[in-house]
Amino acid sequence: MTIGLGLLGCGTVGGGVARLLAERASELSARVGEPLRLVHVAVRDLEKPRGYGLEGARLTTRPEDVVADPEVDVVIELVGGVEPARTLLLDAIERGKGVVTANKMLLAHHGPELLARARARSVDVAFEGAVGGGIPVVRALRDALAGDRVTRLVGILNGTSNYVLTRMQREGLGFDAVVEDAQRLGYAEADPSLDVDGHDAAHKLIVLAMLAFGAELAPSAIPTDGLRTLEPVDHAAADRFGFVLKPLAIAEEGGALGGALAVRVGPTLVPKDALLASVGGVMNAVLIEGATLGPCLLSGRGAGAGPTAVSVVADILDVCRARRASSSGLLTAAIRAEARAVRDPGAACSAFYLRFVVRDEPGVLGRITTSLGAAGVSIRELFQSGRADGFVDVVMLTHECAHAHLRAAVAEVDRAPFAVEPARLYPVAAA
Amino acid sequence: MTIGLGLLGCGTVGGGVARLLAERASELSARVGEPLRLVHVAVRDLEKPRGYGLEGARLTTRPEDVVADPEVDVVIELVGGVEPARTLLLDAIERGKGVVTANKMLLAHHGPELLARARARSVDVAFEGAVGGGIPVVRALRDALAGDRVTRLVGILNGTSNYVLTRMQREGLGFDAVVEDAQRLGYAEADPSLDVDGHDAAHKLIVLAMLAFGAELAPSAIPTDGLRTLEPVDHAAADRFGFVLKPLAIAEEGGALGGALAVRVGPTLVPKDALLASVGGVMNAVLIEGATLGPCLLSGRGAGAGPTAVSVVADILDVCRARRASSSGLLTAAIRAEARAVRDPGAACSAFYLRFVVRDEPGVLGRITTSLGAAGVSIRELFQSGRADGFVDVVMLTHECAHAHLRAAVAEVDRAPFAVEPARLYPVAAA
Repeated sequence: MTIGLGLLGCGTVGGGVARLLAERASELSARVGEPLRLVHVAVRDLEKPRGYGLEGARLTTRPEDVVADPEVDVVIELVGGVEPARTLLLDAIERGKGVVTANKMLLAHHGPELLARARARSVDVAFEGAVGGGIPVVRALRDALAGDRVTRLVGILNGTSNYVLTRMQREGLGFDAVVEDAQRLGYAEADPSLDVDGHDAAHKLIVLAMLAFGAELAPSAIPTDGLRTLEPVDHAAADRFGFVLKPLAIAEEGGALGGALAVRVGPTLVPKDALLASVGGVMNAVLIEGATLGPCLLSGRGAGAGPTAVSVVADILDVCRARRASSSGLLTAAIRAEARAVRDPGAACSAFYLRFVVRDEPGVLGRITTSLGAAGVSIRELFQSGRADGFVDVVMLTHECAHAHLRAAVAEVDRAPFAVEPARLYPVAAA
Repeated sequence: MTIGLGLLGCGTVGGGVARLLAERASELSARVGEPLRLVHVAVRDLEKPRGYGLEGARLTTRPEDVVADPEVDVVIELVGGVEPARTLLLDAIERGKGVVTANKMLLAHHGPELLARARARSVDVAFEGAVGGGIPVVRALRDALAGDRVTRLVGILNGTSNYVLTRMQREGLGFDAVVEDAQRLGYAEADPSLDVDGHDAAHKLIVLAMLAFGAELAPSAIPTDGLRTLEPVDHAAADRFGFVLKPLAIAEEGGALGGALAVRVGPTLVPKDALLASVGGVMNAVLIEGATLGPCLLSGRGAGAGPTAVSVVADILDVCRARRASSSGLLTAAIRAEARAVRDPGAACSAFYLRFVVRDEPGVLGRITTSLGAAGVSIRELFQSGRADGFVDVVMLTHECAHAHLRAAVAEVDRAPFAVEPARLYPVAAA
């Protein structure tokens, strides 16, 4: 008995999925135990020429018809965004269909709702393609680590951000110049905000935290810091201190945190010899720390039609195999999400990188260090260098201190008459 | 209906598995849909005190009784070695039981036989723990990459070898000194041959090549080079050339290779900025390259009770879930292994690292470079330095050349009267 697949969205990823399904039809059938057939595909434009793999499928511009099609057993959602994706997938679940989606925005906002409905109907929702493109991180957290307890998760989850920071760091370029280049090369959107301001990484972190910690987090609850205020001097200074600036998304829990989860998205200093420091360009990576497993790093291409299509096809296999074995719902049943408090970012304790842009006047350095000292912040390394605009960068690395104390001291400096720009403040990641 | 588990071998990994099964009993049952119960355990010594998790299990010194126990649905083999593990698992399969094993030596020698018997009986054989400890690489190749074609696989598969090379490189120490230290710390066996001579890595490479390429390879067919002839100067020279020596296991295929698979285990030069170069100490890593996926790196602790136990428990879940869903055999059915030719190592083309130990006499450098030049080998960088024993190291990096040509020229130099030791020759890994 053939298993019928319905595809919502047939852009680059959808086209890649259709091609892989066709090219590897016999291997895939062998793995499921039944042939798979792409029967119905929702596209934007019926007239657009289509690639290999869509010959036998009905095309429509109405995604709801694909969901309602009785020949469609599994719905593959690749349209992105919250609506109409949410309504379409809830409808699919209600009809008892399996769901595969690569939609991180939808999962970040409504993942627990979708999964709860899927559990109630005993169907599966699989979403390997939603995080880390071709990196099998969802599978690792859901299946490979099922016997362990995750204590910490650190990801480079946005390829555009990593590309921008890597080129700034390696070539000494400014943020705007690299973003323009990235747009030209297709690595950044015309409006890059979702990527470079950290929201996309925050969405993915929410999905991973649901798997790793059973946590339901709201996107608005994730402290998110973007890349726009970084200058070449920040990369040079991090290098001088023995670190690299990476766009990290971090979630961790531990005894000392009570029930709250510590989460953050933003530029972070990573020791040069750490594995994450070597993950450059558009590559993504996730470092998972398990209580029993220890650290485990997964890295690969985070986006692009190919890698995401491979993940989507792997999910299709899982969902179809479960249907064929009449064991639908078991994969999804294991994923539980309960609302979890997010720790006050001020309670974070770490070393910090600081840069003040100040007037070149006598006594300024003394004022800054006095403010920090009064707050109990101890300085590990410090240097000062002139800027092209005539002002001065005062750059430092602190010893470990409480973020709230540091913030207060920095705010005091920012209010001083010699301060030219708000200070830059980035944490140093634990080794 | 409870699923009964039987454990063969209860050393550190087995004890860790028993503990995880007990500690996480409710999460694990939720994922399977049935409770799991450890019912029968084969140990060496009935009198030895046992840890948490074994309270409800029968203990025996006869593993065959565990396999034959009608209450045992899934057999977990952690005794290692080829026999009696092979006979025990064939018996378990014959009785229709699911099998979980972490035995790379058994799989390297008899993996295809075990899997064929499992297919015939429609039962599953899972073996995540056999390669890369806690790294979910078996799962990645078997499930996540099911929709893609693997083109190349590069692994740091032996933690002891990686530890030895890392410390030699970072501290300038000799091989013997580091191995003694590793033995003291428990990172190396009293007889370290299986590890430092590359055989353990070769076993694991065979297991991965079966998953990645559907290849059945004999351990004797893997060109395997150990670490014993490396000296501190090799690490210093690699560093000077911009590389790091890593203990790699490589398998690749491609159009130009016809049906043969290129495989090799041994010290290899990796560019300093490559991700694999940052995998130090006892860590393992596997770089998988998929035709559609691109590169994907998985890294983590390669050995130790904890990581391997996490992998074994994940396998137990898979096998039990399949039994519960009456879909046993599907996971295993996807793994096919056919005998594959191994490419003549002489046909390999790459840059090479070379070190000649020679007498400090006039004309020697000319003789060496003339021999290489006559073989068509072009030198990219070269330096010479005196040794404590009065001889001279002539060290070089070649441009890309055919291994067979290089070998012939090197053999000519090795036969010359000025040669003191056989030349060291290590390939440079493709970026």
